[in-house]
Amino acid sequence: MPEKKRIAVFISGRGSNFKSILDHVQKGDINGEIVVVISDNPQAKGLDYARENNIHFRVFEFNRGVNRDKYFEEIVNYLEGFGVDLILLAGFMRVLSSNIIRRYKNRIINIHPALLPSFPGTHAQRQALEYGVKVSGCTVHFVDEGVDTGPIIIQEAVEVLDTDTEETLAARILEKEHIAYPRAVKLFCDNKLKIDGRRVFIQD
Amino acid sequence: MPEKKRIAVFISGRGSNFKSILDHVQKGDINGEIVVVISDNPQAKGLDYARENNIHFRVFEFNRGVNRDKYFEEIVNYLEGFGVDLILLAGFMRVLSSNIIRRYKNRIINIHPALLPSFPGTHAQRQALEYGVKVSGCTVHFVDEGVDTGPIIIQEAVEVLDTDTEETLAARILEKEHIAYPRAVKLFCDNKLKIDGRRVFIQD
Repeated sequence: MPEKKRIAVFISGRGSNFKSILDHVQKGDINGEIVVVISDNPQAKGLDYARENNIHFRVFEFNRGVNRDKYFEEIVNYLEGFGVDLILLAGFMRVLSSNIIRRYKNRIINIHPALLPSFPGTHAQRQALEYGVKVSGCTVHFVDEGVDTGPIIIQEAVEVLDTDTEETLAARILEKEHIAYPRAVKLFCDNKLKIDGRRVFIQD
Repeated sequence: MPEKKRIAVFISGRGSNFKSILDHVQKGDINGEIVVVISDNPQAKGLDYARENNIHFRVFEFNRGVNRDKYFEEIVNYLEGFGVDLILLAGFMRVLSSNIIRRYKNRIINIHPALLPSFPGTHAQRQALEYGVKVSGCTVHFVDEGVDTGPIIIQEAVEVLDTDTEETLAARILEKEHIAYPRAVKLFCDNKLKIDGRRVFIQD
């Protein structure tokens, strides 16, 4: 068994993916430990889970006019003290700068509510409905310097119904997110993910 | 029961989707009749199904230097004699010109071996593997003047495996194509498809 990975989770809002991963960590499914939570939003509801579970957290407010590189440099410096092995983006609404992506190359994971490369960026569920697809889903992927372009670890498909609204579709996709994201984190923490160019293979 | 739709099928190769639709027509699943088959390739193996089943067929060779508009105008003129209600593209390798698309507006259907809008154009399965997606599939859609951009009728998801080659993935997607395409044609022939902008709804 490899050493437990030390995980940082970045959130901006309710943190439902943070919560689902925390549950799996606490059940012992994931060979890792959430050592710190970062939020750009002091009101993020997900910070309550950190409080309730005595997990370190810190808010880095992104104020108008702040330099993005400098903003993320401060976060990188803060994370150094925690010996972080893995960063999980869980509804974190800022595009990362290249300094943090390079520092944690192939060690930052995100989840996106569409089957990438379809519908990158914001409002993915709305984009899917407006395009008129019949299948959407979610994508867990490593973060590279593009927007939602990094190597894909897991995707789960979700049927789009004629009756769907943005909200009902988002809710059905979210159920799959709560399955796919912990599964991907478990694979990472067991050292089972092998990146080969754009492809990610699962090795035993 | 509405009148049987008169269907033209366009092929270029083995015609496996033509065959699967023909089977459903012959079993009486589809309220339609294949009245003519068009091929741009005199060697298309799928023409054998037309021969064996006494279906009219005609080859329109696309010779170098031929004007595309003129090429499709000849096909349109040929089809007039058959009172065609619906054109099905089944591995037809030519991009249609706008004259035939306008003449058969919302009455031309295509199948594409990927979950559009991901991986339009040729070699969709190879594109999917090279991108590294974990879910691909097939899309049945109306044809508009873009390449694989028209309103989507049905999509079916297919898991992409670590061990997949272009051939194994294509074969697994093809199994789904043979389910999705006849289903979409049945819905069309039962007048159950309603196009609303980019979205296609199924009405009872």
